[in-house]
Amino acid sequence: MEGHVERRKKGRPGYDLERLLLVAATTFTERGYDGTSMEDLARTLGITKSAIYHHVSGKDELLRLATDRALDGLTAAVGEAATVEGRAIDRLEYVVRRSVEVLVDELPFVTLLLRVRGNTPVERHAISRRREIDHAISALVAQAEAEGDVRPDVDPALTARLLFGMVNSLVEWYRPSRNGAGKAELADAICKIAFTGLRQV
Amino acid sequence: MEGHVERRKKGRPGYDLERLLLVAATTFTERGYDGTSMEDLARTLGITKSAIYHHVSGKDELLRLATDRALDGLTAAVGEAATVEGRAIDRLEYVVRRSVEVLVDELPFVTLLLRVRGNTPVERHAISRRREIDHAISALVAQAEAEGDVRPDVDPALTARLLFGMVNSLVEWYRPSRNGAGKAELADAICKIAFTGLRQV
Repeated sequence: MEGHVERRKKGRPGYDLERLLLVAATTFTERGYDGTSMEDLARTLGITKSAIYHHVSGKDELLRLATDRALDGLTAAVGEAATVEGRAIDRLEYVVRRSVEVLVDELPFVTLLLRVRGNTPVERHAISRRREIDHAISALVAQAEAEGDVRPDVDPALTARLLFGMVNSLVEWYRPSRNGAGKAELADAICKIAFTGLRQV
Repeated sequence: MEGHVERRKKGRPGYDLERLLLVAATTFTERGYDGTSMEDLARTLGITKSAIYHHVSGKDELLRLATDRALDGLTAAVGEAATVEGRAIDRLEYVVRRSVEVLVDELPFVTLLLRVRGNTPVERHAISRRREIDHAISALVAQAEAEGDVRPDVDPALTARLLFGMVNSLVEWYRPSRNGAGKAELADAICKIAFTGLRQV
């Protein structure tokens, strides 16, 4: 059973697990993890609880799979950036663009991830993976500053926080169906404002 | 009773109501409004439920007073900005600075406000007041663009969202006790990055 789940984790999960994860992520975000029962999920999905237990061992594993989905995407963005030749500021811009893509593609999962505050092992694990990503981005900003490409009058950690505060705000207002802006257009707008400012020069 | 509460609303509430609002805002944010009972609040405060009902008519009024605290501050920031002489971009920078101050001063209340999603009349009222503020800021960006001070290659509404996405991200990571940065320093950093970009020119 465990091995079955482990194997599934390698690639994209099957359709049923995919739909289960999507409903779990959305419901955890709306009602909170503690406020959501397996019964709630089964009712929303129109399936039995035992059909859910066919896929996962429990609510805990649903939270782990859902947050991992977001974290895997964001970690990959940081990892790919590290292979970009050239200056640190170019790697930083690469991370911003890829992160915007991940946020748009995995919106319900990133939204859930950004709300995780709790104290269960799964939540602590998610928070610690987020922290690794934050550190990597902060280090990129510091390197870009050392290379003379980022303004030296704002602390690199604060710059990284503000930059990703702007990026992450997407989950608050971006709705794929409503906003005309596509991923590339959004990434362009964010890079223009973050890197060169909103002031016309 | 009603009149009593109405009178209190004019100025800062007394110490007891102040503490009650702070605990209510923090608890609503942590456990959700639906997940918090008057019993929970009474227990946290170490007082009886009837002592709470001495101040407010119920949970609903606590939510209204707590979100109004944040909204009154942010609305005042927009209102003051309108009286700033000169160019729209200067009024926009004024709103950003004052909003950062309000976020830092009223952190638990703004944090709660930014999480409000629900469908009760109080929540809908809060969301509609937020929307008025967003529209005013969006109009300022559009005016600054018309005056040639804001880059014309990003939609003004998107620019306003990204700018305040950055500002509002404060509630996610700013902790008065931990971060060395004071209000003015934070406002400076945000204005530098938002208006002139993080790239060294």
